[in-house]
Amino acid sequence: MGARMDELFITTAVASWKQVVNRLDERFALLDHEQLQKQVAPNKNRLLYLFGHLTAVHDRMLPMLGIGERLHPELDEAYITNPDRTIADPVSVTDLKRAWSEVNAAITSAVERFSAADWLKKHNAISDEDFSKDPTRNRLAVFLSRTNHASFHTGQMVLAK
Amino acid sequence: MGARMDELFITTAVASWKQVVNRLDERFALLDHEQLQKQVAPNKNRLLYLFGHLTAVHDRMLPMLGIGERLHPELDEAYITNPDRTIADPVSVTDLKRAWSEVNAAITSAVERFSAADWLKKHNAISDEDFSKDPTRNRLAVFLSRTNHASFHTGQMVLAK
Repeated sequence: MGARMDELFITTAVASWKQVVNRLDERFALLDHEQLQKQVAPNKNRLLYLFGHLTAVHDRMLPMLGIGERLHPELDEAYITNPDRTIADPVSVTDLKRAWSEVNAAITSAVERFSAADWLKKHNAISDEDFSKDPTRNRLAVFLSRTNHASFHTGQMVLAK
Repeated sequence: MGARMDELFITTAVASWKQVVNRLDERFALLDHEQLQKQVAPNKNRLLYLFGHLTAVHDRMLPMLGIGERLHPELDEAYITNPDRTIADPVSVTDLKRAWSEVNAAITSAVERFSAADWLKKHNAISDEDFSKDPTRNRLAVFLSRTNHASFHTGQMVLAK
């Protein structure tokens, strides 16, 4: 396809990510500390845990997509390595909201500058050898996978009262 | 980008859809009629409703993406128009499982034959005029949106005991 078609393909994929992240932004902004303690269902994750989890997972996209160093590795232990309510929340709600916005802004502004060739480069969690065997394990694959992951947890969040 | 890059871009997007649908396939196959009556959380949708809903929504993709006529419009009233448990389930679990597989197979096999230009055509639920104003409202946008939608409900399904 020509340059115009390339651009449309990429713009469409980035728009899908933005739509999912923007809905989460709106939801997160409306919730205070107390509301974020609610669980999505009895004995399931708190809303705060899921926002911490998504922030940490998106932060890991920065090195994976070759955008830059991680901004918030301090969230991993509480929100990726361990299940909810086993480790104290490592940052305040205000700081988590700031981290969430900062991480997603860094990703969005970087991927908006990716060329078509950049999107098809290998991501940084796969070896050269594995990538040569399967070139679909590229940056676009990670990006679509994380967009689906955010949608997956959004589906859970809407169940909280 | 060249033809090889086009192909990779498209293969990656279709792989994302297949991954989400395959996980749902595996889950649906393991559940019997009784297990499908479980709700994802107290007073929330039954698993059966969500599988009916996803089947009906995916069936609507056939005309939207220009693939063909709908195969299972009989599911809409129970699984799209109305909330769960207001209308009797219109088909047996066996028939719903068959419809789910049939609809997704029709979509996957059709989109695997789409050219790059096909992906960027307007979808059939938008006017020519609106599409000329916003060419990102194309078939790829619908496809990514439905992939996210399926992920959203998958996140809810995993909460059911």
